[in-house]
Amino acid sequence: MGQIITFGEVLMRISPRGNKKFIQSNMVEFYFGGTELNVGISIANFGGNVKHISCVSDDFIGDAAISYINKFGVSTSSVVYSKRPLGVYFLEVGAVMRPSAISYNRSHSSFSEIKPSMVNWEKAFRKGVWMHWTGITPALSKGAFDTLKEGLALAHKKGMIVSADPTYRSGLWQYGQDPKEALIELLNYSTIFIGGINEMNEVLGTSYSYSKSDFLEASKQLIETFPTIEKVFDKIRTSLNSSWHKIRARMWNGKEFRETEDLDITHVVDRIGTGDAFAAGLIYGLQQFDDYKAMEFASAACALKHTYEGDVNLSTVREVTSILDGNTSGRLVR
Amino acid sequence: MGQIITFGEVLMRISPRGNKKFIQSNMVEFYFGGTELNVGISIANFGGNVKHISCVSDDFIGDAAISYINKFGVSTSSVVYSKRPLGVYFLEVGAVMRPSAISYNRSHSSFSEIKPSMVNWEKAFRKGVWMHWTGITPALSKGAFDTLKEGLALAHKKGMIVSADPTYRSGLWQYGQDPKEALIELLNYSTIFIGGINEMNEVLGTSYSYSKSDFLEASKQLIETFPTIEKVFDKIRTSLNSSWHKIRARMWNGKEFRETEDLDITHVVDRIGTGDAFAAGLIYGLQQFDDYKAMEFASAACALKHTYEGDVNLSTVREVTSILDGNTSGRLVR
Amino acid sequence: MGQIITFGEVLMRISPRGNKKFIQSNMVEFYFGGTELNVGISIANFGGNVKHISCVSDDFIGDAAISYINKFGVSTSSVVYSKRPLGVYFLEVGAVMRPSAISYNRSHSSFSEIKPSMVNWEKAFRKGVWMHWTGITPALSKGAFDTLKEGLALAHKKGMIVSADPTYRSGLWQYGQDPKEALIELLNYSTIFIGGINEMNEVLGTSYSYSKSDFLEASKQLIETFPTIEKVFDKIRTSLNSSWHKIRARMWNGKEFRETEDLDITHVVDRIGTGDAFAAGLIYGLQQFDDYKAMEFASAACALKHTYEGDVNLSTVREVTSILDGNTSGRLVR
Amino acid sequence: MGQIITFGEVLMRISPRGNKKFIQSNMVEFYFGGTELNVGISIANFGGNVKHISCVSDDFIGDAAISYINKFGVSTSSVVYSKRPLGVYFLEVGAVMRPSAISYNRSHSSFSEIKPSMVNWEKAFRKGVWMHWTGITPALSKGAFDTLKEGLALAHKKGMIVSADPTYRSGLWQYGQDPKEALIELLNYSTIFIGGINEMNEVLGTSYSYSKSDFLEASKQLIETFPTIEKVFDKIRTSLNSSWHKIRARMWNGKEFRETEDLDITHVVDRIGTGDAFAAGLIYGLQQFDDYKAMEFASAACALKHTYEGDVNLSTVREVTSILDGNTSGRLVR
Amino acid sequence: MGQIITFGEVLMRISPRGNKKFIQSNMVEFYFGGTELNVGISIANFGGNVKHISCVSDDFIGDAAISYINKFGVSTSSVVYSKRPLGVYFLEVGAVMRPSAISYNRSHSSFSEIKPSMVNWEKAFRKGVWMHWTGITPALSKGAFDTLKEGLALAHKKGMIVSADPTYRSGLWQYGQDPKEALIELLNYSTIFIGGINEMNEVLGTSYSYSKSDFLEASKQLIETFPTIEKVFDKIRTSLNSSWHKIRARMWNGKEFRETEDLDITHVVDRIGTGDAFAAGLIYGLQQFDDYKAMEFASAACALKHTYEGDVNLSTVREVTSILDGNTSGRLVR
Amino acid sequence: MGQIITFGEVLMRISPRGNKKFIQSNMVEFYFGGTELNVGISIANFGGNVKHISCVSDDFIGDAAISYINKFGVSTSSVVYSKRPLGVYFLEVGAVMRPSAISYNRSHSSFSEIKPSMVNWEKAFRKGVWMHWTGITPALSKGAFDTLKEGLALAHKKGMIVSADPTYRSGLWQYGQDPKEALIELLNYSTIFIGGINEMNEVLGTSYSYSKSDFLEASKQLIETFPTIEKVFDKIRTSLNSSWHKIRARMWNGKEFRETEDLDITHVVDRIGTGDAFAAGLIYGLQQFDDYKAMEFASAACALKHTYEGDVNLSTVREVTSILDGNTSGRLVR
Repeated sequence: MGQIITFGEVLMRISPRGNKKFIQSNMVEFYFGGTELNVGISIANFGGNVKHISCVSDDFIGDAAISYINKFGVSTSSVVYSKRPLGVYFLEVGAVMRPSAISYNRSHSSFSEIKPSMVNWEKAFRKGVWMHWTGITPALSKGAFDTLKEGLALAHKKGMIVSADPTYRSGLWQYGQDPKEALIELLNYSTIFIGGINEMNEVLGTSYSYSKSDFLEASKQLIETFPTIEKVFDKIRTSLNSSWHKIRARMWNGKEFRETEDLDITHVVDRIGTGDAFAAGLIYGLQQFDDYKAMEFASAACALKHTYEGDVNLSTVREVTSILDGNTSGRLVR
Repeated sequence: MGQIITFGEVLMRISPRGNKKFIQSNMVEFYFGGTELNVGISIANFGGNVKHISCVSDDFIGDAAISYINKFGVSTSSVVYSKRPLGVYFLEVGAVMRPSAISYNRSHSSFSEIKPSMVNWEKAFRKGVWMHWTGITPALSKGAFDTLKEGLALAHKKGMIVSADPTYRSGLWQYGQDPKEALIELLNYSTIFIGGINEMNEVLGTSYSYSKSDFLEASKQLIETFPTIEKVFDKIRTSLNSSWHKIRARMWNGKEFRETEDLDITHVVDRIGTGDAFAAGLIYGLQQFDDYKAMEFASAACALKHTYEGDVNLSTVREVTSILDGNTSGRLVR
Repeated sequence: MGQIITFGEVLMRISPRGNKKFIQSNMVEFYFGGTELNVGISIANFGGNVKHISCVSDDFIGDAAISYINKFGVSTSSVVYSKRPLGVYFLEVGAVMRPSAISYNRSHSSFSEIKPSMVNWEKAFRKGVWMHWTGITPALSKGAFDTLKEGLALAHKKGMIVSADPTYRSGLWQYGQDPKEALIELLNYSTIFIGGINEMNEVLGTSYSYSKSDFLEASKQLIETFPTIEKVFDKIRTSLNSSWHKIRARMWNGKEFRETEDLDITHVVDRIGTGDAFAAGLIYGLQQFDDYKAMEFASAACALKHTYEGDVNLSTVREVTSILDGNTSGRLVR
Repeated sequence: MGQIITFGEVLMRISPRGNKKFIQSNMVEFYFGGTELNVGISIANFGGNVKHISCVSDDFIGDAAISYINKFGVSTSSVVYSKRPLGVYFLEVGAVMRPSAISYNRSHSSFSEIKPSMVNWEKAFRKGVWMHWTGITPALSKGAFDTLKEGLALAHKKGMIVSADPTYRSGLWQYGQDPKEALIELLNYSTIFIGGINEMNEVLGTSYSYSKSDFLEASKQLIETFPTIEKVFDKIRTSLNSSWHKIRARMWNGKEFRETEDLDITHVVDRIGTGDAFAAGLIYGLQQFDDYKAMEFASAACALKHTYEGDVNLSTVREVTSILDGNTSGRLVR
Repeated sequence: MGQIITFGEVLMRISPRGNKKFIQSNMVEFYFGGTELNVGISIANFGGNVKHISCVSDDFIGDAAISYINKFGVSTSSVVYSKRPLGVYFLEVGAVMRPSAISYNRSHSSFSEIKPSMVNWEKAFRKGVWMHWTGITPALSKGAFDTLKEGLALAHKKGMIVSADPTYRSGLWQYGQDPKEALIELLNYSTIFIGGINEMNEVLGTSYSYSKSDFLEASKQLIETFPTIEKVFDKIRTSLNSSWHKIRARMWNGKEFRETEDLDITHVVDRIGTGDAFAAGLIYGLQQFDDYKAMEFASAACALKHTYEGDVNLSTVREVTSILDGNTSGRLVR
Repeated sequence: MGQIITFGEVLMRISPRGNKKFIQSNMVEFYFGGTELNVGISIANFGGNVKHISCVSDDFIGDAAISYINKFGVSTSSVVYSKRPLGVYFLEVGAVMRPSAISYNRSHSSFSEIKPSMVNWEKAFRKGVWMHWTGITPALSKGAFDTLKEGLALAHKKGMIVSADPTYRSGLWQYGQDPKEALIELLNYSTIFIGGINEMNEVLGTSYSYSKSDFLEASKQLIETFPTIEKVFDKIRTSLNSSWHKIRARMWNGKEFRETEDLDITHVVDRIGTGDAFAAGLIYGLQQFDDYKAMEFASAACALKHTYEGDVNLSTVREVTSILDGNTSGRLVR
């Protein structure tokens, strides 16, 4: 398998243990994450060859972030450094009807300082066959948007597969860029669309509903609008409450509509990064399986992520396929 | 909003983490609590102006208790000190069919030493508009009963609202006082009754059942017997097991009977202090909303408390009303 | 009650907290366990007089193991020592569809070095009335098998009750012995069979199904084949997933077939050692109650074990019988 | 005693336990601190009436900071809020020849957004008799400098005592202001100078040495140059290594030079905030004792701070004076 | 070796980790201790046969205490139970010039309820050859004093050796008994006096100084006054500060005065229970060695205790004698 | 700089926190280590290009070990796997006169299974310029000895520098090989000798003393006996006790004898791996500096290691050279 390239901010995630609030305990745990890095690490856990590109702080926190990424065997050889501090996010984990809450400290982070001149994309892509991006990166700063754009343009030119998770988060996008225009520009370099009705409505300017027929209509319009896009994958979450979710996925690959069964996640451990686990499962799966099996693999990966603390899916391929083989009763593995 | 006064023992709560027993680990966590303090802190978290009156130990444990109360912005300016140690309770948190278990060390605590001469009620009530008491305080010692009685008499005289949670716990009441007589005496100063069939039967000497009609009958008889009482609020808990509860509330305010929907708490984190969260929600709610909305607010507050470790509801008004607005699916708050 | 003798390996169990993997945190917790020791400690927690016989390492880890056993009042006076290290197992606790995973380091442990000459069975049995063994011990080494055989032969000769939990784990049995032959030899000294269809099929060479009628057929054939065996007890687990199980038990005592109700364990804390909790409940119960009540007691003990961390059921008799009396709603015990 | 006002940034301090680096453990502890806040909390621990003025983030981290300050009984009634995140600093605690290391994330913090219009100094000073400032605040942003200047001007006008700790840290001062000019402007409102040769050289443009005679010369020149300044207090640290320090102090109060004995700190627990403990001891002491006794009190407070984790001196007056009474042998207090 | 009997209160010790105060962290650790129990456990760690007699609470905290004692192989077969809670003490560990601080919650503990009728001394002494008591027990309650007196009278009658550590702590003795009279009465049953000038002055009503000659004079007068006493052992501590102590011992055995070398404890981990470690070393040593070697053994044991957290010396005989053999350079033991 | 190759066992190190024993707490921490790996990681922390070759377990513990090595940027591409468990060692950290204690579980570990056929040395050495070995590896198993021998022979043939730390630990060497013969065979491939009088006496069969003149004699005889050896480096430790050490080094490089100053380590945090830190400093230093400066660098690295928990020196080159530049007073680094 060739190298998968992920590009995006590395954040330090800090949270009290269990369901505590910061006001309750001065002992907290940290992990590193970031939506694109989560995807990269998860693919590396599947055995994929992954390189993550980012800009981190030139201090012992940046060192710890690099170590964390290396720990999973993800290459950091193209990471660059800045004098600014690494982005941080604080998390309080909810339960039942209490939602989890996040507070960010990222607007002047090391990553927001990135500029196209800082990344040597040609060198970074030497072994690259796939690039993955999300809607978070272009929202962070003009430099981040421009750097991503430069990378995608080259990836497209080199014939690499480009997967897009154009999540739109309105709280970001503080630097003046119109989100819709930016996402459209980037989608024109992309081949796989990982997103649902909200994301399609955002870039198409439409108002499709969540129904199956609307999903189909929207997908077809999307592919028509963005001719590079070949396939659309959508993950659907139904939440009973913070502790009990169901996960399902559906797809349109230009030829057929398919939908998976619900996976019932009765005791959520940590829901952060579950969408990233889906994307990673898909990227890995599309290189190994047919489209439907890839989507099933992605759904199972997503469901498994709910059982791990931290931002990252720690499952191996064997563990994910075991779910697909029906081993969902949690029988002890010796 | 004027100042709400709570009066009662401050206890140090010590418990192993998770579902461990003391025999399993020598690492434990502590919080401070006590039924009336829990009510006070929760109201302060709603933005209320609260003063808690108590008698704590004159040592570094008493200092830590005062700090804990101050941390939530509750005034400790009327707290008094004693040479005796602070009361302690040990908790082992159960799960599923295993009940949580509590062991107390409070019978000769600093609070049990309190005497009417130690509290300057006139000064304490300078900004007071509401006083809250529970059936725990008069059960602890003659001094505690007498001090409470003196406070309530003055509160009544000054026209303050007095809410009563006359919980009857037979294991206490070791100093010779007849519980029923004591509670009756104190209810004669009270305007809001927060309690159910058991509490009404205790003070009325009746044997009403849990049915709606009996609740109505009992409430009417209560209001007839204690003419200062205007409203009765009852919280009903249905427990599948230690980890899965349902909460519902009902009321008779002299004019109408109302009942809330069940709130389903599928993954209980900590059930201690959930009744206090209800009382706090009610006291806050009755100052902001109509009676039914106040009861709904109290129910949601009570349900949310099940998701926090420790004795205290840490929710804000915005978090509670969000539940009332139907946001119970635990969607991440960024 | 006379002394119950358990014999088997003591393992150090090391696991990250909560649902973490070893890759996620360098802070871990340890307990000591081992299937026969778990049974012994649980019986001691019921107030039984128990002696555990084993071979531990002659270092500070062996000392810690001895302390751990003593902590529960189980006699270690017949434990012997070896220069080899204590066996270890590493555990990662799963959740929902993620199974828990175990990795062993026991094949050259101190216990595997045990030899018949090292244990003075006559002295060890001085107060003994019951001996319990499992299919793990004979699988570990020839010395372990021989030592167990010698002990059982003497127990049989002295008229002690012998309970057998002939669990067959194919990953063990590395030293050349045929498992079936070994188990048959040991069953010929046994009076109580604690096991299900799989274990009966293994020793009978049959292929009975899980149906009630097959269970009855199998039990009868077992008793015919092994005339010392008087009673068969089977625990049935239905797993929704790693976090949600149901437990039920059935029996054939030569006279009647009985079956318990399902116990619903909605939030599993730790499933390790739940079978041992069943065996312990049975051994204790059969000395106090009739066969059916003993099986009910064992089922409730087994269900309660799911709520404790570690390998061992920490319940008292009062706590188990409280479940049988219908107190499964988890009402706080003060 | 009237109210002491402190003004400055509140930082969240995050550090691994013991002497670990971030790369070694994902479990860390946090406290809140900041040089002026440290002074304020320490004075409150001496029983002083203190108000801290700052600008914190409007999120659960800001809430936790406010709680932390309230915990020590320091008033937060004049704290204002900003949409930016709270400043953070990361600390790795060294030992022996390994220095402790700090990495800041504060350049775009909530405090750096403060503007004169945000603080109502008149209201804040209602009970104020003393204001304390340090050289950190004017270094952070123009808004911080201007706000501080406005506060000091009013304090001076109202005849409040103003103590200055004009620490000069060259790594700050990124916003274009000349440090020397700023410090000079602020010193013109100040009455007590807490600083040594480096600070005097910085504002005088001189190059005095550490000798006693140079200290005297410098102090006299300083008082001549800044006529509002009446007294100079200097704390001298001699470090054998990160774990073993000695502390001594000297003063010139316009009339006499005095110097304390060395205090030998053989096992440093945490050296952060020890200068702040000195300043707090001085501010408290100058209101209770003569100048020399105040300096002795400040030195003992400073030395004690080395024995507490976190930024803050947790000693009471009784604990500090006990050192002055010669109780330095650490005899257990029951 | 025959059985050594210790009698006294079991306390739960609760303390924050490291040098934290309770105000700083809600995570604390607990051990069980109590001066006589500490002696007993330490002797058991030397391989001695020890029984501890006490009265503990009849709850899960009492259960945990019993488990803790059993863990070290100390017999709890004569422990009795009371409805009152177990005594607790809270500890904040100091450093350098900050002393450690203790706050007790013991005045109405389970042990203070003990009465002579509750302990069957005849049965308890069945294998007893030595009894150890301290001045803490008679200070706690009349029942404790009377029960101890009854035990000592019987021990004396049976010709058992009785060691006395008549520590006088004035803060105790709240129940009206004259301390001096009580200690005199108990010393009349004792053979070994473990104490220094303060203790001798207390019971003799003298004012000897710490000098060698005064120690000799005092010892001779003591033996004259209490004819059962044969030997006097005194441990001398010199504290540089809380973190750095020196230990030395001296003795008069009726025939010769001897004194040990100083042991330099440069980095104290925990000083609680170091006197108990000395007593335990002496009791063990006097049964194995001559008087001087026993005192040397006791001093080394005492010094080693400073390196263990908790109340108890965890050293083995081999570890103590290794110090006596000159192995004090801390060379790694593999 | 070319690649440095280290080869040896990876061990999981498990220890209680602080100075606790295993009997005191069930919460422990783990790191990975092993003498050659420690050297490799430390060189990587200096910026070196390092590959570690080993044989680890094929389970989640082996995965965690690989992650740990990757975390420091050390290549694991030549690591092989075995069905056996990873070696473990348990550590109890002493203080003052209490030595640290270690218990091993390594005799049947995954590494002991290694065979020459399992490692492709040609491929592993593709970028190699230096190989480092220690006397631990040939002591573990015949396979380990043979594999190492094969590697060294090839390294020698390719003209790589070979550094030898021929530590002789008699407790190992259980498989029948004569230690002296094995070490002699391996030294014949080596160019740098890192060891002292003991190691030289062992391989020369001499009995030199620790004096300077004997060191010189021994070094000369060593170089005469093993003509490939060019330089001898010796680290000398003087221990006041477990918590206070001094470090010094001396060398003979065939031309001159040099000796460093003592480095005083007044508060040892963790002494494990300090010899490995010396070796790593030397290997790095000899590639950057002259022999004496390299030895000074190695000594400072060794001293710094005493301030880090775990087996590994976490210092950077800048941090080590800062010590050499005289910055030993522990001044805070911001």
